[in-house]
Amino acid sequence: MNLAMIGLGKMGINLCENLIRNDNQVVAFDLNEVARQKASDIGAQNVSSLKEAVAALKKPRIVWVMLPAGRPTNETINELSQLLDQDDIVIDGGNSFYEDSLKHNEILKAKGIKFFDCGTSGGKSGANKDGNFMIGGDDYQTFQYIEPIFKDIAMKDGYLYTGKAGSGHYLKMVHNGIEYGMMEAIAEGFDVLEHSQFKYDNEAVAKVWSNGSVIRGWLMELAQDAFSKDNNLEHIKGIMHSSGEGKWTLDEALKLQVPTPVIGMSLMMRYRSLEDDTFTGKVVSALRNEFGGHATDKCE
Amino acid sequence: MNLAMIGLGKMGINLCENLIRNDNQVVAFDLNEVARQKASDIGAQNVSSLKEAVAALKKPRIVWVMLPAGRPTNETINELSQLLDQDDIVIDGGNSFYEDSLKHNEILKAKGIKFFDCGTSGGKSGANKDGNFMIGGDDYQTFQYIEPIFKDIAMKDGYLYTGKAGSGHYLKMVHNGIEYGMMEAIAEGFDVLEHSQFKYDNEAVAKVWSNGSVIRGWLMELAQDAFSKDNNLEHIKGIMHSSGEGKWTLDEALKLQVPTPVIGMSLMMRYRSLEDDTFTGKVVSALRNEFGGHATDKCE
Repeated sequence: MNLAMIGLGKMGINLCENLIRNDNQVVAFDLNEVARQKASDIGAQNVSSLKEAVAALKKPRIVWVMLPAGRPTNETINELSQLLDQDDIVIDGGNSFYEDSLKHNEILKAKGIKFFDCGTSGGKSGANKDGNFMIGGDDYQTFQYIEPIFKDIAMKDGYLYTGKAGSGHYLKMVHNGIEYGMMEAIAEGFDVLEHSQFKYDNEAVAKVWSNGSVIRGWLMELAQDAFSKDNNLEHIKGIMHSSGEGKWTLDEALKLQVPTPVIGMSLMMRYRSLEDDTFTGKVVSALRNEFGGHATDKCE
Repeated sequence: MNLAMIGLGKMGINLCENLIRNDNQVVAFDLNEVARQKASDIGAQNVSSLKEAVAALKKPRIVWVMLPAGRPTNETINELSQLLDQDDIVIDGGNSFYEDSLKHNEILKAKGIKFFDCGTSGGKSGANKDGNFMIGGDDYQTFQYIEPIFKDIAMKDGYLYTGKAGSGHYLKMVHNGIEYGMMEAIAEGFDVLEHSQFKYDNEAVAKVWSNGSVIRGWLMELAQDAFSKDNNLEHIKGIMHSSGEGKWTLDEALKLQVPTPVIGMSLMMRYRSLEDDTFTGKVVSALRNEFGGHATDKCE
């Protein structure tokens, strides 16, 4: 099919390659000229503005937005609501918060533009080949019209129409919440091994667990890859950043009053890892000293 | 090779089938006669006592113990230490606590019998084909002698010699701890979906997540299987039993002072699920009433 890719970062450029390999015609735009050139090199039609991108498309136009969540996505979708016509189609493949996607749907729907919020999983490699997509959108008939795109770029059985607008990004949000918990569980296990009386080869352990064990899966294979480069991760600090989706899952669980202690704890452990020392630690240490005279460790 | 399988439960009988399919000669024993007959039906040599099992083997004898952890395994290994000779080999393929395995190693070593503690993963289907094995034992040369057995019954790259006695069961223990955390994370995610404003088809979600997503893996495939039989699990109570390995992982983490909050919380949520009501709940409710006059829910 004929579509525009807006945003040519790690995910966008790989999606372009995936689309082009599967005989789609891609119009590519990014604010960054180097990224545009890269898209051009792999066979996309390189344009230098959102307006040009829209002008280069056949009707009904399909515009895939693949930008960081928040302002970049929100502003682009607002602009698109001005540039596109009735029955044109916007796919937000980024990690937008589902409530933003509900707003985007309203803005675009008011102009007769069809909106799909598409959660994208599988990492960079998945974007490039055999990706994973969870697609929400109010108009199922229009979904059927764009479905060939997902058939092309997803793994077999690797895309799902999830229902009403917002449901795709919501599902991706929960997917990431689960991911936080799974990653923390795997990591805690290796931490116990690291401190145990036995000496384990982390790469060999991840490898045997990847082949036939109950806990096999892509995350374990990625652990194997990481350990193969640096078996005790001596060059990586244990600082765990996060980009929002775990927090949103917890926000949502709190809103719904669903107990999700493991997802919540995984997020808290990420926050803990960002701090060298904690005020909690200072307070507990001070209280132990106050009531029992227990020694505190002094700051230099 | 020629070996005895002691214990013909769900795991033992499937291991027999796996071994026999791969041209091993298996002598099979279980206290239960029906289980013995089953083993006989699939081509094992059925014997009616541990003594007979030992007598039926060529030297050096290989005895695979596949019994519930604790007394059944401990007593059998004690008996075997009387029945076997120097250079004979005992493999404990069950879920023994690694400290028990260290004791078993000492008991057998005193008689010159070689001991291997073998953590077995992959469930019943893995026992039957393409299994997963983590094998500890002090004598690497003897491991090499029995290695063809694991080559036969394990998935490619699905077995690992983990080092000294105890290290195989220790690794399996930590594997199960990770499993607790991963399962709780997956389950909490589905719980959020179940309460959300959108309507998801659990089977379809597990299926799309199994094909190309970051959280794909065997546990997600098993979730898909479970949902395919009962999409909202209306016939399964949310009572989560456990058989010890999660608790041992937490015991070990506490001993080593390694923070494992997600594995710990997963275990606590299992314990919580065993209770209809909690004394914690009664105490908190009573205190809210005492300080703020907040209403309590009364027992009938």
